[in-house]
Amino acid sequence: MISKKIDSLSNNSSRRGFLKRSSMLAGSVVSATVLNRSARASETSVPPSWKTPGAEFSNYGQPVEGTGSPIRWISADRSAPGNGVSWCPLHELAGTITPNSLHFERHHNGVPFVDAEKWELLVHGRVKKPLLFNLSELKRYPLISRTVFIECGGNSNSMWYPTPVQASAGYVHGLVSCSEWTGVALSTLLNEAGLLDDARWMIADALDAAGVAVSLPIEKILSDSFIALYQNGEPVRPANGYPARLIVPGWEGITHVKWLRSLQLSAEPAMTKFDTVSYTDLKPDGTADRFSYPMQVKSLITSPSAGMVLSKPGPVELRGLAWSGNGTITRVEISADNGKSWQDAVLQKPVLDKSLTRFRLPWSWTGDEVVLMSRAHDSANHLQVNHSQLLAEKGSNHYHHYNAMIAWQIDTNGTLHNVYS
Amino acid sequence: MISKKIDSLSNNSSRRGFLKRSSMLAGSVVSATVLNRSARASETSVPPSWKTPGAEFSNYGQPVEGTGSPIRWISADRSAPGNGVSWCPLHELAGTITPNSLHFERHHNGVPFVDAEKWELLVHGRVKKPLLFNLSELKRYPLISRTVFIECGGNSNSMWYPTPVQASAGYVHGLVSCSEWTGVALSTLLNEAGLLDDARWMIADALDAAGVAVSLPIEKILSDSFIALYQNGEPVRPANGYPARLIVPGWEGITHVKWLRSLQLSAEPAMTKFDTVSYTDLKPDGTADRFSYPMQVKSLITSPSAGMVLSKPGPVELRGLAWSGNGTITRVEISADNGKSWQDAVLQKPVLDKSLTRFRLPWSWTGDEVVLMSRAHDSANHLQVNHSQLLAEKGSNHYHHYNAMIAWQIDTNGTLHNVYS
Repeated sequence: MISKKIDSLSNNSSRRGFLKRSSMLAGSVVSATVLNRSARASETSVPPSWKTPGAEFSNYGQPVEGTGSPIRWISADRSAPGNGVSWCPLHELAGTITPNSLHFERHHNGVPFVDAEKWELLVHGRVKKPLLFNLSELKRYPLISRTVFIECGGNSNSMWYPTPVQASAGYVHGLVSCSEWTGVALSTLLNEAGLLDDARWMIADALDAAGVAVSLPIEKILSDSFIALYQNGEPVRPANGYPARLIVPGWEGITHVKWLRSLQLSAEPAMTKFDTVSYTDLKPDGTADRFSYPMQVKSLITSPSAGMVLSKPGPVELRGLAWSGNGTITRVEISADNGKSWQDAVLQKPVLDKSLTRFRLPWSWTGDEVVLMSRAHDSANHLQVNHSQLLAEKGSNHYHHYNAMIAWQIDTNGTLHNVYS
Repeated sequence: MISKKIDSLSNNSSRRGFLKRSSMLAGSVVSATVLNRSARASETSVPPSWKTPGAEFSNYGQPVEGTGSPIRWISADRSAPGNGVSWCPLHELAGTITPNSLHFERHHNGVPFVDAEKWELLVHGRVKKPLLFNLSELKRYPLISRTVFIECGGNSNSMWYPTPVQASAGYVHGLVSCSEWTGVALSTLLNEAGLLDDARWMIADALDAAGVAVSLPIEKILSDSFIALYQNGEPVRPANGYPARLIVPGWEGITHVKWLRSLQLSAEPAMTKFDTVSYTDLKPDGTADRFSYPMQVKSLITSPSAGMVLSKPGPVELRGLAWSGNGTITRVEISADNGKSWQDAVLQKPVLDKSLTRFRLPWSWTGDEVVLMSRAHDSANHLQVNHSQLLAEKGSNHYHHYNAMIAWQIDTNGTLHNVYS
């Protein structure tokens, strides 16, 4: 069956090359049960669902409990309501789009109630004409749509600990998600307001009780940033920033300010708490690493991953996600021997700029203890390094922007563990 | 303000060309309120949401009532539970991805309960080895992801009536939606089963109480069709076919069989009710138009559209969707003078094969009575015709595959009406 299956894949040149090159990664696929005559009885049986009408229609659909519907885990601070995160269950998802109900969230003081009828966005500061937009006005401006990932600067931060945390992949690395966002280009609005010559920064602040406010350089804002009013087709939900949030493609999550209140143009950054204390790291030389905006190239194998169990040796499709705040993913390699040798995974097309990219590679587990890992390359010619190289570069006081190669050890029982690459 | 706004768009060559060419479609954008000193008071006021912590995290997010969350309308037969449709509110959505909760549904006898633990998919008939797959086995096969639209063959069917129905665009044309589906290529499974030489059809049947079963030619099945296990990242929901549905890119919705039970390979089509009575049209010569699988090129302006009101003359961005079961959308034209002259809309990139394509064009309403319409071209060189041309071609007994140009009349009060092109 296995040899037959390999033949069936032989039209795929990248897979064929991979099978020739590597015995470690000798790939194949699972096989179904070949029916014998007794099993074929199901062919003629009448399923119970044919005997009774099914459930009726709904105005707004939901998954149904007991039907494998993934949920987000929540890590929140009981002493500070609404300060924490909900993790996107990457290890249970497929493809590249994150459903809105499972998009990761990072709130600093909960989800504010915003009355959209009264909501206004103020554009002020170093502009020729301060402007005030209500929601219906904003919706009438020319819209753009773009599929982009958002990753929290603090994603994967337990990976800086001395010992790797044993939790499902999504609950360690799931502060990243990907949606098709639709909204108004900031260049359109700021052009109408008219920038003064010294307007080099835009300070965006929010309506949440934490008073999130971040300073962003005007070049990035004018080049590709926008105010999202819709996420995956529907209006941005309250938990994701209703009625309007910033999208700053490829930059750390905090810059994608939710529940926008105002945009202040300025000659200097505001040096808010979120510019200076939060999302700032201590470098080995003792100085602060601030304004570290772009999320660097990163990848992980989402299936199989930590906590999963391979029931027996044999074929497994390795599946994962890669992304880079610097551009597109150009290549993802997978190692099944702790980094000694590498094989190219297949990238699912279309590969979009600053979006999650799905990769896959057929593989076969021999039953031995092995370490699986992936490394991604981006269009800026960046490549992920391993854990010890990242620590050597960033030092031991870093807490954000962890992007080393992510490794899973498979023990001889088939259980996967989080280990440092 | 308007002349200034046109200047601000002058880097966009297609828009500039359009502005030069057409006075009918002289485009501009809405403008915000220019702040005077008293309005600027809001700059320093303290919003109520800064004074109290916000709402907490949730495992599975939801929209919140009163925050503009669209819903599906339901058209169902009270005498036959679960027989009907729920309409995707196209007129309230943006971008190209449909959230799972708003994907249109067409059920013939409701949503069956399927116990995934006991579920099996049978592949039998004209194959060398009949096969039986359970869900965990199927999930281990190589996966593919693809963004495709699904359109019910009966979408827009009230447009065959003598008088156009006055309802929102989504409640007339919203039996179409678009998702990123992930699953297993049928070529993979059928290759393992081994097709006999006379296996020219595949008959897919379902677990719902209506016993949906359709016959599909093997060439299409092997070329690009697959069994979807995931929709927009999460497992396919019960209402969309859990645990597994067919995806037959570009073909009418009934072929995308939900709640799959078996795939029977055959030398001939089964000529089920769904092959012969349903989704079949009477042609002008009195013969039946069966197996009319591909959904032909189509488009509509979703905003503004029927039932909406333009509050005053001035700038409006025209926004719409186009799609074709024959390939990609290559061009969408918009007319604001009942089809006398046409201007090219801008297509949102990436334009994907057999996916919804978003188009937009700035326009300005003069306050006069006008008729807006769009016409799309596809990569198979098909172009939408108008209503009377389609009726002349298809006759008066047609009920499916309505794809004539869709037209909205704006009256002098600014109200939009559905009219025949």
